[in-house]
Amino acid sequence: MSFRETLQYIVENVGGGLGAVIMGYDGIPIDEYVKEDGALDVQLLTAEYAAVLKEIKRTVEVLKTGVLEEVAINTEFSIAIARVINDDFFVVLVMGSEGNFGKGRFLLRREGPKLGEALQ
Amino acid sequence: MSFRETLQYIVENVGGGLGAVIMGYDGIPIDEYVKEDGALDVQLLTAEYAAVLKEIKRTVEVLKTGVLEEVAINTEFSIAIARVINDDFFVVLVMGSEGNFGKGRFLLRREGPKLGEALQ
Repeated sequence: MSFRETLQYIVENVGGGLGAVIMGYDGIPIDEYVKEDGALDVQLLTAEYAAVLKEIKRTVEVLKTGVLEEVAINTEFSIAIARVINDDFFVVLVMGSEGNFGKGRFLLRREGPKLGEALQ
Repeated sequence: MSFRETLQYIVENVGGGLGAVIMGYDGIPIDEYVKEDGALDVQLLTAEYAAVLKEIKRTVEVLKTGVLEEVAINTEFSIAIARVINDDFFVVLVMGSEGNFGKGRFLLRREGPKLGEALQ
């Protein structure tokens, strides 16, 4: 499966998925799959969250609690789960507030390592 | 129940709980319950995360995706779930990496509103 096919698989199978993006901490996307009829601006949201994730990564390095693995940011209208792929990249899944949080975490945990292998 | 008793209840009942803190976005704790034999410095971790949460809150306000409700930051050795109580305060639950993430979210979601009422 290509990056895009993997992202599409996650978004279409999670329940409530709106889009998923593989990106670097600079906020530049490597690849993405975004549903056309989604209620949220997935690209804008993930780009803004990238800056926050960079800050979290730095904080975690200071705290020495091992490598950062996952960050979830849930608001009134959005669920976003970021799964770290390697030291440079992460994948973010964006869902509406009715999205299946547990399944989202599961799919990212399962598919993340495959994305990491393909990115090497 | 006092703040401290509620925090203690959450930490002792979640499975893998190390501590819980009610704090403001300035990183100053209102109240806390921390297990004595915990492997992590809960106070340091939550204080550092407060700065990150402030940044996330600001980002979410820019994105207009409704109010921030929950942030989870999971690393190799730690699970931290922050639940927003109101515009000024949040509660953070810290667990070891073997902690029960789902139960942590559930307990914070259930107890959060009670803490909010008591903080008014």
